Amino acid sequence: MKLSEVGEFGFIRRIRPGALFRPEAVVRGIGDDAAAFRPEGGRLALVTTDLLVEGIHFLREEGRFRDLGWKALAVNLSDIAAMGGEAREAFIALAVPEATPLEALEELYRGIGDLASRWQVNVLGGDTTAAPRDLVICITVYGEVAEAELLTRAGARPGDALVVTGTLGDSRAGLEILLGRARAEGEDVAALVCAHRRPVPHLAEGRFLAAAGGAVHAAIDVSDGLGADLGHLLEESGVGARLFAARLPVSQALRRFCRGLGRDPAEYAFAGGEDYVLLAAVAPEAVSALGKGFRERFGGDLAVIGEITAAGVREWIDETGSARELSAPGWDHFRKG
Amino acid sequence: MKLSEVGEFGFIRRIRPGALFRPEAVVRGIGDDAAAFRPEGGRLALVTTDLLVEGIHFLREEGRFRDLGWKALAVNLSDIAAMGGEAREAFIALAVPEATPLEALEELYRGIGDLASRWQVNVLGGDTTAAPRDLVICITVYGEVAEAELLTRAGARPGDALVVTGTLGDSRAGLEILLGRARAEGEDVAALVCAHRRPVPHLAEGRFLAAAGGAVHAAIDVSDGLGADLGHLLEESGVGARLFAARLPVSQALRRFCRGLGRDPAEYAFAGGEDYVLLAAVAPEAVSALGKGFRERFGGDLAVIGEITAAGVREWIDETGSARELSAPGWDHFRKG
Repeated sequence: MKLSEVGEFGFIRRIRPGALFRPEAVVRGIGDDAAAFRPEGGRLALVTTDLLVEGIHFLREEGRFRDLGWKALAVNLSDIAAMGGEAREAFIALAVPEATPLEALEELYRGIGDLASRWQVNVLGGDTTAAPRDLVICITVYGEVAEAELLTRAGARPGDALVVTGTLGDSRAGLEILLGRARAEGEDVAALVCAHRRPVPHLAEGRFLAAAGGAVHAAIDVSDGLGADLGHLLEESGVGARLFAARLPVSQALRRFCRGLGRDPAEYAFAGGEDYVLLAAVAPEAVSALGKGFRERFGGDLAVIGEITAAGVREWIDETGSARELSAPGWDHFRKG
Repeated sequence: MKLSEVGEFGFIRRIRPGALFRPEAVVRGIGDDAAAFRPEGGRLALVTTDLLVEGIHFLREEGRFRDLGWKALAVNLSDIAAMGGEAREAFIALAVPEATPLEALEELYRGIGDLASRWQVNVLGGDTTAAPRDLVICITVYGEVAEAELLTRAGARPGDALVVTGTLGDSRAGLEILLGRARAEGEDVAALVCAHRRPVPHLAEGRFLAAAGGAVHAAIDVSDGLGADLGHLLEESGVGARLFAARLPVSQALRRFCRGLGRDPAEYAFAGGEDYVLLAAVAPEAVSALGKGFRERFGGDLAVIGEITAAGVREWIDETGSARELSAPGWDHFRKG
């Protein structure tokens, strides 16, 4: 069935049921000029929006629309996580080429719902329109945070420990496997490809860091790649950093993948992108207790990968202990020079 | 200059200055993972998002990017107006084909700023990414309204007067002129084309209706066309309507344009679209006083164009007084049958 057979409004009627996970805050959801909802009094509002275009951010894989919906929402939830917030409401705008089967769109919404239900994020509205050629997905997420708990990219101080909330590089390896540029064995394929297709936003980890009584001075999510995102954090904070290659947390699957290719896992961890873990600058005296609490809560480690320095320093300490200049070969959609 | 020469982050640095018109509410604007701002305590949050794609919603006209920016924001502000709200913050997501000159994007932002400054709407963030072929603009607007003043599409009651806050059909005539399908004389060209390129959202009119002490039972903005948008309002309210062709407010420019073509202005008013005036259902006993207040405030008329009836009735009374069934030939991007 095509979207043209049910029309925009027929489509809205199909996606309206099951869109609300916290109906009590909602006054008007899908189907009015705008959504209307009750913010929690006294908290800051957080809004983030991400635009994904076929051929740039994703390739159309038949039968994979559910993953695409998941990921399109995940990248936004990750931005809310990086501010220390709770994600509350989502708005889904789609531009859909004529030939797209209706079932594919319903799968896309199912993938959005898979993740939205996990975090109790309501889908409150959006826009559905035609596209001449490429599928476009623009998701906006509204979240909230207490002002005292807001995490921003600014605020890192020399001496702070640099930490990440999960492993790095799997998503990039998964993408290379999907593009047929590399191979891996059995379960490693599944783990790496899943990291690319269904990243889990670190909302709980973000709340944990935000609630650390001010010990976390700055945070960002790793979407463009550790190198690039660290660069953003340093720029906004006006500081420098020193990273230790040996401390970058990588999965066993990525180690085996890299061994097969004769590549260095640290390279994937540094320049990979789409990891959707959080990178944060933490007061040095608080790192140990925070790491202990993190392990108790999440099982894994809050990995200390480096330290904040005065501005001007951008140092990479390799496995042998020798230092070189950090470059930031992350993901800028335009920059070419 | 191309976007690729300055990069995404270079571009952000260019648009950051001049993005804030009410900085006092903003904690983090452009340049972090999400925007953070202070909602006004106790009010409802309103969020709307619209996706515009080249070739579907607009044609690329060289030298007209400023108008495009204005209009892309205007369609969102109009949605906030239709809920009775104040527009507060805007988020601009763009997907940009490689060949687009940087100057065109800056013109687009200038057009957004023209309108944002008029309503003191901050531009707090967004996303800028590459597009393979077609320019995509997805704008999200956050607004607020007191819960008691919220206007929705639901709530129209039999006996209510149907009113519109401005003239209808000019935008459609302007589009036909732009596409070379029709002609008009001198100043009429400018007026009709301007109505299409630079629609003025009826935010002040929306606040006026919202503040009418509950006399306005339902509202919607006229974007898809009066016929289609009336259909949405009737469906959400579970009522019917009777429209009087002779009462549809049309400009002198549209009258002359239609005379030249041998067409009926009521047809443009009914099926045109992109008018961005508000259509509302008003308690019959309040119409006269409301219209007087409207005239004092805005100069023009709050035109009574029909009445709400019980469900099932959809009646069009033509200039001779004879009735026929109302169809709703509005704008559905997909519907074909």
